[in-house]
Amino acid sequence: MKSSIGNNIQISLFGESHGSAIGLVVDGLAPGIHIDYDFIYHQMDLRKPKGNISTQRKEADEIKILSGVFNGFTTGTPLCICIENQSQHSKDYEQLRFLPRPSHADFTAYEKYFGYQDYRGGGHFSGRLTAPLVALGAICISMLKQKGIIIGSHLVQIEKIQDQPFSDDLELCQKQIEKMNDTYFAVLDSEIEKKMLNKIEEARLCEDSVGGIVETMILNVPAGIGEPYFHSIESVFSHYLFSIGAVKGVEFGLGFDFACKKGSECNDAFRILNGHVITETNNNGGINGGISNGMPIQIRCAIKPTPSIYQTQNSVNLKTMENTELKIEGRHDPCIVHRARIVIDSVVAIALVDLLQERYGIQYFAGEKR
Amino acid sequence: MKSSIGNNIQISLFGESHGSAIGLVVDGLAPGIHIDYDFIYHQMDLRKPKGNISTQRKEADEIKILSGVFNGFTTGTPLCICIENQSQHSKDYEQLRFLPRPSHADFTAYEKYFGYQDYRGGGHFSGRLTAPLVALGAICISMLKQKGIIIGSHLVQIEKIQDQPFSDDLELCQKQIEKMNDTYFAVLDSEIEKKMLNKIEEARLCEDSVGGIVETMILNVPAGIGEPYFHSIESVFSHYLFSIGAVKGVEFGLGFDFACKKGSECNDAFRILNGHVITETNNNGGINGGISNGMPIQIRCAIKPTPSIYQTQNSVNLKTMENTELKIEGRHDPCIVHRARIVIDSVVAIALVDLLQERYGIQYFAGEKR
Amino acid sequence: MKSSIGNNIQISLFGESHGSAIGLVVDGLAPGIHIDYDFIYHQMDLRKPKGNISTQRKEADEIKILSGVFNGFTTGTPLCICIENQSQHSKDYEQLRFLPRPSHADFTAYEKYFGYQDYRGGGHFSGRLTAPLVALGAICISMLKQKGIIIGSHLVQIEKIQDQPFSDDLELCQKQIEKMNDTYFAVLDSEIEKKMLNKIEEARLCEDSVGGIVETMILNVPAGIGEPYFHSIESVFSHYLFSIGAVKGVEFGLGFDFACKKGSECNDAFRILNGHVITETNNNGGINGGISNGMPIQIRCAIKPTPSIYQTQNSVNLKTMENTELKIEGRHDPCIVHRARIVIDSVVAIALVDLLQERYGIQYFAGEKR
Amino acid sequence: MKSSIGNNIQISLFGESHGSAIGLVVDGLAPGIHIDYDFIYHQMDLRKPKGNISTQRKEADEIKILSGVFNGFTTGTPLCICIENQSQHSKDYEQLRFLPRPSHADFTAYEKYFGYQDYRGGGHFSGRLTAPLVALGAICISMLKQKGIIIGSHLVQIEKIQDQPFSDDLELCQKQIEKMNDTYFAVLDSEIEKKMLNKIEEARLCEDSVGGIVETMILNVPAGIGEPYFHSIESVFSHYLFSIGAVKGVEFGLGFDFACKKGSECNDAFRILNGHVITETNNNGGINGGISNGMPIQIRCAIKPTPSIYQTQNSVNLKTMENTELKIEGRHDPCIVHRARIVIDSVVAIALVDLLQERYGIQYFAGEKR
Repeated sequence: MKSSIGNNIQISLFGESHGSAIGLVVDGLAPGIHIDYDFIYHQMDLRKPKGNISTQRKEADEIKILSGVFNGFTTGTPLCICIENQSQHSKDYEQLRFLPRPSHADFTAYEKYFGYQDYRGGGHFSGRLTAPLVALGAICISMLKQKGIIIGSHLVQIEKIQDQPFSDDLELCQKQIEKMNDTYFAVLDSEIEKKMLNKIEEARLCEDSVGGIVETMILNVPAGIGEPYFHSIESVFSHYLFSIGAVKGVEFGLGFDFACKKGSECNDAFRILNGHVITETNNNGGINGGISNGMPIQIRCAIKPTPSIYQTQNSVNLKTMENTELKIEGRHDPCIVHRARIVIDSVVAIALVDLLQERYGIQYFAGEKR
Repeated sequence: MKSSIGNNIQISLFGESHGSAIGLVVDGLAPGIHIDYDFIYHQMDLRKPKGNISTQRKEADEIKILSGVFNGFTTGTPLCICIENQSQHSKDYEQLRFLPRPSHADFTAYEKYFGYQDYRGGGHFSGRLTAPLVALGAICISMLKQKGIIIGSHLVQIEKIQDQPFSDDLELCQKQIEKMNDTYFAVLDSEIEKKMLNKIEEARLCEDSVGGIVETMILNVPAGIGEPYFHSIESVFSHYLFSIGAVKGVEFGLGFDFACKKGSECNDAFRILNGHVITETNNNGGINGGISNGMPIQIRCAIKPTPSIYQTQNSVNLKTMENTELKIEGRHDPCIVHRARIVIDSVVAIALVDLLQERYGIQYFAGEKR
Repeated sequence: MKSSIGNNIQISLFGESHGSAIGLVVDGLAPGIHIDYDFIYHQMDLRKPKGNISTQRKEADEIKILSGVFNGFTTGTPLCICIENQSQHSKDYEQLRFLPRPSHADFTAYEKYFGYQDYRGGGHFSGRLTAPLVALGAICISMLKQKGIIIGSHLVQIEKIQDQPFSDDLELCQKQIEKMNDTYFAVLDSEIEKKMLNKIEEARLCEDSVGGIVETMILNVPAGIGEPYFHSIESVFSHYLFSIGAVKGVEFGLGFDFACKKGSECNDAFRILNGHVITETNNNGGINGGISNGMPIQIRCAIKPTPSIYQTQNSVNLKTMENTELKIEGRHDPCIVHRARIVIDSVVAIALVDLLQERYGIQYFAGEKR
Repeated sequence: MKSSIGNNIQISLFGESHGSAIGLVVDGLAPGIHIDYDFIYHQMDLRKPKGNISTQRKEADEIKILSGVFNGFTTGTPLCICIENQSQHSKDYEQLRFLPRPSHADFTAYEKYFGYQDYRGGGHFSGRLTAPLVALGAICISMLKQKGIIIGSHLVQIEKIQDQPFSDDLELCQKQIEKMNDTYFAVLDSEIEKKMLNKIEEARLCEDSVGGIVETMILNVPAGIGEPYFHSIESVFSHYLFSIGAVKGVEFGLGFDFACKKGSECNDAFRILNGHVITETNNNGGINGGISNGMPIQIRCAIKPTPSIYQTQNSVNLKTMENTELKIEGRHDPCIVHRARIVIDSVVAIALVDLLQERYGIQYFAGEKR
């Protein structure tokens, strides 16, 4: 395992923030999947830093697919996505070699790798490594769309400002998702959106950062996906979601709100609708016993504030083992929640393709024989 | 994967609630680990239903270790833990074959297994399958203890009643954990404990159930454990934790409370203490970039109310595809939070042994050559 | 990994020769597979020691399926096969604790497990552990039969006596296989069979043992199964085959005879036959580039002579680290080739089910919805 | 799995013969391993086609390490090795789209990937993909050397011409290995070498090809490496070895020669030598019960003749489903045995590093803390 994951769609993620390239190899994608570069760049664009609310580091993020695609379709053999790094201000980071930034992976990487880690800009732990995940996620989101499955997220909270949740009405929810999927700063209520943007700007001016919560919905997942116990949808999805550096909490359906409910208040009763089984409510977020029940899957992820802030902070010198102070320079995001949400959509799509392929085999997503 | 998990300590869980036996095979335990049956039964006892606050189903839960132990020590080859089922009121469940209980796995299992699932008492999805996990967890908790690593949990919330969190003071925290580890209904504050017990009794009398939140601490994990991205401590732990049926939310450190914090409020600054690196605060719950930093690992899990309640509920008949009503009979828990906490400790211990063995090899836990 | 294997059909094998039970858990079998106990016992019977040519140790080998089967069909959840040990002459082995038998696993197990291994009768390394593999193999052979896929083996060599190979004629080959599948000592030519039996009897009288070669054929595997490189049919099959203790060589098609051929002599030209692609010859044993081409898959396994012989042999005392002599007592086979062949069929069937499920999903083998 | 392998050192291989690049990602290498580019190119050079006995296709095979190496040492995070393709005569292959070459993967890839495979030059199945394996193998061979473990191979047979085996004398064997490791056409006996070269030249002139056998030795593997059953050294090594396209047979120690031996002739008796346990003979090739016993590990691999020959061959048109003839053009090797041997050394080294890390943890190969 380590920087690899998956049973049917296996990913091996590589690269460092200031190395020559980042990317991933994905093994197990069905043959005959059309590669829609426009959609990949559309998704990459939603992850990019933009405006004042993001870092000023600009990366072209040009996707090179080195293998696994031939004449516009996947071949069925491993696909390597490679993105060359361009904007490398390496000298900014030299001072950090022995001065770990609070709440970053600098210290733990130093301990884990005995001092051999690439310490420039977080090295392998940099948020930049989510870029190839978004590219692969775009391919998976397209695959799911072909099967009628729709994924989308919005910012349901930035600091203390809350957006409304996605609608319980399936049709309306789908429209909301589609709108969010084309929106850079994805908030349902435009008044709330302004307040959130102000809050981020305020944090930026104070050399500070803010966190938030992302709500994600997946519509039209067939019933019967997932496994009992160690391969439950919650287990698999949370495994992928906690791979995203800033995620510190994951809940499904009511999640932590279940704690203060009675069973009679939150059980999801079954009903027949148009010859199908549905539930009257969806407090369990589409999952019973780890397995999809056909209702929308609902996830909420807590995103911590970016630890890179410009204020002077306490730290230590790992060489001299003395206390010291640290002032981070460089280019940083006052908020990454809006960028994280597209990473969330991406890894959830990858995880879901894996689970679907487990049940239906490689043929489920494969193209017509030719 | 499926009902199996682990890279270094691999578990394969088997059994059904009303089948002949439940158990697991664990492959990868180091040779020379002393098997302390007293401690295993001590842990099993904490999982057992007791008093009014639990189901009246009584199981002896006698552990048989069929392999992998010789002369009181692990051999290093696969260990099979087997528990025979005794109390099987199978007829109670026959009516449920086509009548799925709300928020249980009955419907999803029916869909997943095309109607071949053992539908008696939840079959493979029954909470009974956590019993062998607790037995294995006991072995792992002992292994960790040998290395100075201590795990413990308490009920930090039952319905709306909240206990204080574990203390920030390491020494005090350790004492609290040790006390909780010998307590059946594990609450720090005895006044709160009474209120919680009353709340559960109240739910029982109303033929209802309540949920809650469990807080878990792990002390003395060495820095450098875990992996970036897909094998982060959060990823691995949440994968195991969401395998427990009732868990619907998992958070680390501040978790969802990170959302409303500023970076300056929640970054954990580094300091030197007695020649070691520590953090001034521990908002990240002992984990940076997915890797342990040496501080206590802090986890909170949301447990939903038991879906088995005696009130009449809406359901459907999967055979006739018609709406119907359902009244669950049998023996059920008005609350499982106090029983779940020992399962949480157990799977966290198993996951941690796996991660430690990844770094230090099989020799880390092995006995002296003889 | 370790004593576990498989991607889609995962096995975890447990037990020791003189422990309380041996068995396995298999996770990933499709739901709705009929369990044919008669066929399982038919296969188990072919593995049993019989007559003078085998050990006199007699085991009932009664199969208990502890989980995963309900009303005669697989449920889709993990299936635990358990066989209790009965005939345990443990005292025979006590002397061997520090006296490793030549060419057995006694010494390597001692080194690997630091002296904690169960040293009685080979412990976990005993050939007895192939019994549950044969039981599972029987289930898999039935599953394959449902899909028209047929597996069979015969003894193509015992010491220097050689049987004819399976026929190139598909129809005749199938008849040969079917006959072998009902024969305890599986040899095509009855004259050769007598000579082989005499050779074994001769070895037995000399307190010696003999080896041999097993030829295995699999008919009607669809083209396109297997993976390039690390999951080639040869890789996967050999992985399973070398798990059988006595197997020391595996070859496919011409195997080692390829070495002395020219390309023009052994290339398998393609032809159209009845609208299907076939090859004129089958020197590659049905596999090109690691993937099935639709022709019969042909495998040959070298089986070494049983290392347990009654003659006095040189050994060492691991406690005193001095040279010594050793005379093995107890009950041993002068030849295990005829018993090994059914284990070969079994693990090949298990491996093939795994590969088929990878391509076609769990639904390929699942029963009709009910 | 698929084009990925490994438990502790995980490889994901990517690329096609005529795509833009080939390479691999390896996850799990310890931090602090010095990268010796000279040695990597030394090994790459031994794999390159040279003289008349190889294809005329020339590739620079320039190694780019895109990640995982920093200041000359591994970082401990995934290492991506990338080799750009240069010499791409793609038009040579267009005619082959529906005309599968006998004994190549063309037909099976067509079936497996539903016609979407990159059919140019074998695509993903090309022998070119062994180049990154040799690069990684070089790193692993260096790692093993640091621990005193030595790997080497020679051509023990080309067509019917046989070289002597490696010496039983450990010291002499080591010298032979060291000499072979610096030799392009690795044969122990120089007279035999000439005969083999003549035989290959003869085949080339006849537009034909020849096969052979490679013998590999590994010295100084500590006792206790490998696992019982499904992770035996034989299982793991054969899994890697059969990943190499041309390998059709693998045997350990006496291998197929065990078949005609008696137990008394081939058991390896134990003796004490200088306070260590050794065996008098090494018929089992250093492995008992799947686990290393400290004696040299001995492997023999059968390599089939290159299927690419210039003679006209029978084939079919997969589009029209008619019989046809085929004359392969382009640049091909009359023999690949001498090039395959370095691939064999490489994958064996990778497999062994994986097994050693399983036992001793990541720290075994890691550099000193700095």
